[in-house]
Amino acid sequence: MLTEFARYVDDRRDEYVALLQALLRQPSISADGTGIGETSEMVRQLLTDVGADAQVLAIEGGHPVVHATLRAAAPAAKTLGFYNHYDVQPAEPLDLWASAPFAAEIRDGRIWARGSADNKGNLMARICAVSAYRHVYGDLPLALKFIVEGEEEVGSPHLEEFAATHRDLVAADACIWEGGYKDATGRLIVYCGVKGMLYVQLSAGGAREDLHSMWAAIVPSPAWELIWALGTLKDARDRILIPGFYDRVRDLTADDRAALRSIPFEASERAAELGIAQFVLGLQGVDLLERYIFQPTCNVCGLAGGYQGPGIKTVLPNRASVKIDFRLVPDQDPREVLESLRQHLAAHGHGHIRLELLAAEMPARTDLRDPLVETVIRTVRQAYGRDPIVYPMVPGTGPMYVLCQRFGIPSTAGPGVSHPGSLIHAPNENIYVDDYIQAITGIALLIHNYAQATR
Amino acid sequence: MLTEFARYVDDRRDEYVALLQALLRQPSISADGTGIGETSEMVRQLLTDVGADAQVLAIEGGHPVVHATLRAAAPAAKTLGFYNHYDVQPAEPLDLWASAPFAAEIRDGRIWARGSADNKGNLMARICAVSAYRHVYGDLPLALKFIVEGEEEVGSPHLEEFAATHRDLVAADACIWEGGYKDATGRLIVYCGVKGMLYVQLSAGGAREDLHSMWAAIVPSPAWELIWALGTLKDARDRILIPGFYDRVRDLTADDRAALRSIPFEASERAAELGIAQFVLGLQGVDLLERYIFQPTCNVCGLAGGYQGPGIKTVLPNRASVKIDFRLVPDQDPREVLESLRQHLAAHGHGHIRLELLAAEMPARTDLRDPLVETVIRTVRQAYGRDPIVYPMVPGTGPMYVLCQRFGIPSTAGPGVSHPGSLIHAPNENIYVDDYIQAITGIALLIHNYAQATR
Repeated sequence: MLTEFARYVDDRRDEYVALLQALLRQPSISADGTGIGETSEMVRQLLTDVGADAQVLAIEGGHPVVHATLRAAAPAAKTLGFYNHYDVQPAEPLDLWASAPFAAEIRDGRIWARGSADNKGNLMARICAVSAYRHVYGDLPLALKFIVEGEEEVGSPHLEEFAATHRDLVAADACIWEGGYKDATGRLIVYCGVKGMLYVQLSAGGAREDLHSMWAAIVPSPAWELIWALGTLKDARDRILIPGFYDRVRDLTADDRAALRSIPFEASERAAELGIAQFVLGLQGVDLLERYIFQPTCNVCGLAGGYQGPGIKTVLPNRASVKIDFRLVPDQDPREVLESLRQHLAAHGHGHIRLELLAAEMPARTDLRDPLVETVIRTVRQAYGRDPIVYPMVPGTGPMYVLCQRFGIPSTAGPGVSHPGSLIHAPNENIYVDDYIQAITGIALLIHNYAQATR
Repeated sequence: MLTEFARYVDDRRDEYVALLQALLRQPSISADGTGIGETSEMVRQLLTDVGADAQVLAIEGGHPVVHATLRAAAPAAKTLGFYNHYDVQPAEPLDLWASAPFAAEIRDGRIWARGSADNKGNLMARICAVSAYRHVYGDLPLALKFIVEGEEEVGSPHLEEFAATHRDLVAADACIWEGGYKDATGRLIVYCGVKGMLYVQLSAGGAREDLHSMWAAIVPSPAWELIWALGTLKDARDRILIPGFYDRVRDLTADDRAALRSIPFEASERAAELGIAQFVLGLQGVDLLERYIFQPTCNVCGLAGGYQGPGIKTVLPNRASVKIDFRLVPDQDPREVLESLRQHLAAHGHGHIRLELLAAEMPARTDLRDPLVETVIRTVRQAYGRDPIVYPMVPGTGPMYVLCQRFGIPSTAGPGVSHPGSLIHAPNENIYVDDYIQAITGIALLIHNYAQATR
């Protein structure tokens, strides 16, 4: 099947690239709502164009979900779900982009745009795969469902309720998760879980207004209070100090350890690529990888207060704030961590610091012995000519728990479009055009293989 | 003399206010250089218009100094200097201003503008005082020198060299410092010294680019490093932890303690005005005032790193920075403190944090028994009908050391235009029109009195 199909896809390369560029040129920033309405409608149209029964489902107080179904030839066929998101991260800082973030310029064999890797490239590859499959073979061997949300980059705040109230729309035998990527040597990575997240903002307030800094001798400083409070959260050995924080972190199984050992990860090469002298605590090898994949974090995403312009301004700012994301691992629960954090701050005398919940997601994992994992591995071997690297979990986050795990639906990544230099969430996000085209064939083959696989 | 003169000034009230509004409407932000050239020329013209021999003196790599002299009738007369600055602090955050910062709107008897209190109101009052004095009396009873710099708000980086290479231009029997202000009960405050300052920026760097925050498990975070480094600088009891920092802080003299006790300061009222529950450590009374006036500080002026927009962005920022001003007291030396800070950071493993010197100023004090102090007190008593409050030192900073103290020139504040709600360095800076007009008469009387005073 493969050679003929891959040739068909390659012949339509320009058309598929143009479709992706058009989608990338439509901004869709969930953090501030830019372009959300336009993009959801564009995605609905793209799915309709490949024969799906597609609709834009409004979400009260949130961004709509695009849902689409494609029927199988045989009524008893299995159903495979695709989870994607049409929203993207903000593009700031804009001055660090070599070409405009929504220009989708092609340069050096890559498409450069916010959302190219995360997640529009993957979404478009799947839509093109369906189109190509139907053109080459006519009927689909199984039913497909697309769930394309618009709030992934702000922590999917409404997806839990959406899935609970639309169980029929999300029901499936398995779900292919949003992405997938190649490692530095070009091997495709298949992951079987995601970290959870607690995203909070802490804000300290002081005097009614910013004051001349001569007042600093006697007027309490919110900036200092925030610094002192943060100092109680994590020590310089990178150990998170909130009581009970690590209590629910699962011990690694023998399967986990075997998977870890099979993951190639050249610490010194990756450090050089990232431009750092070494990783935290000087870790290397399996210890480093274990920390990367299986350990929770407490990261400062943003820090703000007072005068940040050029030169000097002598001011005692009356407000300081910090945005923090905790990446969580099974079986940590973001709402439990939030409560522990609240108690911890109060216990250290920082109870009046305002603590806002901005996002909460549960971690999720699919068992490494699930049949879906085997099917994906086999598909990658056929489509890419090499075995994938299997990650028991990735350090990124997504709503895999609310969409899949709590309904018993296994989920893994599939053939995806990213590479280690994709710079997701950062300036100059990009994917290789070749990876995008190759993923179209890979996804089509996965549809074929999963239809045959043991249920 | 007083009634007649005050009537002359009051008759010209509209004219004097219009002159000040014109000066305030010309921005002159030393931090980024906005309007510096225009403003220095405007000040030169204003001084020329009142009969001074005025010039704009270029400063290599800096903002020009406006210098002006006015001759006395008698050649052997004394010389009184006036120190002022025509530059202002940046006006940000702009959205907190009730009227535009450079509109100089008059509302509720006040002029609202950046620079109204600090320092253009005082400068203009002095220029108007000279004009009125000459119109009413013809000749001046002593020689006057105006030194009006354009870099006070960025720490006067070139004034030390200017004064050293232009000793003839700064030589004087005494110097009236830039401002002066009323307390909450309307009593004028006369201060006899200023704190020094060390202003630094600390910047921590990490990976080559901002990264997806999933990397936070293993990639070092500059934001966290900065937080940990800051935590070593000052403890939650507000004690600065840099070794040797307090070694040069002078003990209070009996005169200092007597002056402190004579300063009215209602802690609870001031706290309520500032919108805070209490002052640091819950201090009140003389202890609070001693800390305010005689203790050095370590204040965070600005804190920046990563994403600061609305909503969430999950990013590991590759840079974080903080702007800190230390207010110093006699006999602390900012360059010594800088070196101690550098060693302290290195000793705590933060030696690779970039430490930039943005401003350094020595503290300065005039002896409370100097004849100038007596003359100013007497002048205020006559012009305002009440004794002034004498501060041995104010918690603000200015280049009193480089312009006066090192040449043995005594210096104090004079009749000034500010009040406790002037919000200097903050949004909605303002002065009362009445205070401005009253200061014009006060300054003229000071010229008269100092000419007669024992040398």
